[in-house]
Formats: sequence, C-alpha cells, structure tokens
Amino acid sequence: MNTENVPDIIVSRLPVYLRALQHMAENGITTTSSQELGDNVGISAAQIRKDLSQFGEFGKQGTGYHIPFLIERLSQILKVDRSWDVAVVGMGELGRALARYQGFSNRGFHVQMCFDSEPSKIGQHVGEMTVRDVKNIVKDVREAGIKIAMLCIPAAAAQEVTDQLIEAGVQGILNYAPVSLSVPEGVKVQYIDPAVGLQRITYYL
Amino acid sequence: MNTENVPDIIVSRLPVYLRALQHMAENGITTTSSQELGDNVGISAAQIRKDLSQFGEFGKQGTGYHIPFLIERLSQILKVDRSWDVAVVGMGELGRALARYQGFSNRGFHVQMCFDSEPSKIGQHVGEMTVRDVKNIVKDVREAGIKIAMLCIPAAAAQEVTDQLIEAGVQGILNYAPVSLSVPEGVKVQYIDPAVGLQRITYYL
Repeated sequence: MNTENVPDIIVSRLPVYLRALQHMAENGITTTSSQELGDNVGISAAQIRKDLSQFGEFGKQGTGYHIPFLIERLSQILKVDRSWDVAVVGMGELGRALARYQGFSNRGFHVQMCFDSEPSKIGQHVGEMTVRDVKNIVKDVREAGIKIAMLCIPAAAAQEVTDQLIEAGVQGILNYAPVSLSVPEGVKVQYIDPAVGLQRITYYL
Repeated sequence: MNTENVPDIIVSRLPVYLRALQHMAENGITTTSSQELGDNVGISAAQIRKDLSQFGEFGKQGTGYHIPFLIERLSQILKVDRSWDVAVVGMGELGRALARYQGFSNRGFHVQMCFDSEPSKIGQHVGEMTVRDVKNIVKDVREAGIKIAMLCIPAAAAQEVTDQLIEAGVQGILNYAPVSLSVPEGVKVQYIDPAVGLQRITYYL
C-alpha cells in the first residue's frame, strides 16, 4: 500500500473520522457503517469509503466496520498510537487553556513544557508545569526531544520563536498566532485563527 | 462572474490571502505580486493566480496587485466589508479568551454577547459584556439578530446548544467543542479542534 502520496485533503479528514469513532466506542458501539459514520461527521458515505480505501481494506460489504480495529489502524496511520510530548509557547489565556486542556491525553499528546517571555509569568505554575523562560527554549526543547509545539504568542514574535523551535528540532507547529510562518521543507505547520474560521463562514452567508 | 460554485478549498484560502495583504498594508506596502504573496503564505504563485481568477481580474501582468484594491475586493467577497455580531457560548478559559480577543475588530467581527450555564459565571463581566444565562439564548440571540456564534462548551452539550442557536436564527458556527455537529442545510460550521490539528501534523512526521 503506497500511502506516500495521499492527498492532504484526505489526511485532514482522518482525525475527524477517528474522533467520531472514539466517541462511538466510548458509548459502547462496536460496529458502524460508512453511512452512519458519514452522518456523524457530515461527509458522504462514498467519500469515507474512498478516503479509507487509500490505506487498505477496513470493512466488509454488509457487515461494515469493526470500530476497535478501525480506531487502531487510524491511530497507527496518524501516528497517535503513541504519546507525543508537546511544548506550548505563550502563557496568555489561550496558551494556559491549551496547557491544561484535558482532551489531548487520549488522542496522542501530552503537554510537557510551557514558555513565556514575561518575567511575571516565568516560574508560575500552570497545571503541573512551571512556566519556563523562552530565552532557554532552544536548549530546553532540544534536551527534552520535543518534536511538536503550539504557538500562542503575538504575530510579531511568531517567526522568531518558530526559527528557534526548528533549531531545537521541532518538526510540527500548531500556530495560533494570526500570521503565516516561513519554515523549511519537512516542517509541518497547521494554522488555527478564529478570524479565518469566521471568514470561511461569512462567505456563504 | 459566477462565484456560486467556487470550490470550498479555494474559499478556505481567501482569508489567508486577506490576512497577509492586511499585514503588508499595515507595513505601508501598496503593491505585491503573486510570487511575493505566495512566499508569504506558503502557497505557489500559480495557485494564487488561479484562485483569484475565480473572482475576476485583480492584477496586471508586470505591475502586480494593488494591495488596497485587493483587500477591498476580498473583503467584499468574504462579506467582511461590514461588522458581524457574534455570540460566544461557554465562558471557560478559551471562551473568555475569545470574548476578549483583539484580533476580530479589524477583520469583520464584534463579539456582542456571551453565555454560560454555570450560576457562578452568569452575571460576571468579561470585557465590556455581562455573561448571560444560556437558558435565554434563543430569545437573546434572536432579538439581537446575531447570525454567527462560537461554541466553547463541552462536547456533550454542543448539539443541544447548536439546535437552540439555529432556532434563534444563527447561520454559522465556529465550533471549538471536539465533536461533529448535525445542522440543517444552509447552516455553515467550521471546526477548531487542537487535537485534530496536531494529528494532521503527526501523520507527516
């Protein structure tokens, strides 16, 4: 199975399928159909079958999908059948909320350390962590072997911190700063900007 | 110009172009090229030209794009050449951060009211607003004529509140609850789930 050239748009839907399947499993459901899963996530059954077929055979005609197996395989494909340590940079309200977010642990992520540049915040406790000085970010992130970071800092500081994270070995960034980042090939950035999200809605109104 | 059937994927990039152009304008830059804009947002110049061509002629061969004009047209296309009132539901850390977020006002949005279900939070001040009781959400949102809401509540409560918002006339929802919502045709939902964002990164690591 060649999964090297799966289109990004298909990859982007897999976490949504996985989330829905995990909800079903939590509710004690063990099998589902592409129709039921599709109704659940607002995607057509045909699209789901097509997306999943990129990665192998997951269901049988007539009996549907065995949910625990599909969860296991999607977790492997998305590489969240392990726990990734994550660094959060920026301890404003949003950063603190993310640092304490309960929804990561069963989905493959563990917030391991957090940073800020403000002297009043450095040394404070957020959850079980102590806020570190962003001045030491390259050393601290590298020593911890952290590969993923979430950026919750102002747009003006985002590129500089991004460069430091990449120097420290980070390969993926979830960027909440409202600015596009310049990164070398092989580093992956996902953007979360509420105003962009809202503008993708108003177009259709 | 028939813009009715522009693919969602193209629409989804327009707010990113608009954001980059607004940054350029704030820095006093008045013209740009598809190459420069593309470098800025990490999208190829050819793709940008193709995307914009869906909506008309914006630049001239050799002279590039006039930034104020392109901002004006993209704002019109995305319908953010006005200010949309928004309701925020859920006054946890994330909801409070969004209710006070400074980045909406110059991008077409104004948080007008906020809700929670916890007696200890109702009546509290968040920014210039007083937290309202979610029990009155249908009446309050309808009377204010609000068409857009942001959901920052637990997954278990998200569908019920969504149904109420739609009853109140809401047509677009930015959903931070980690669950897919069922909505009638014509209602638009955008999802923001940090774990989904991270899983879209780990696939490539």
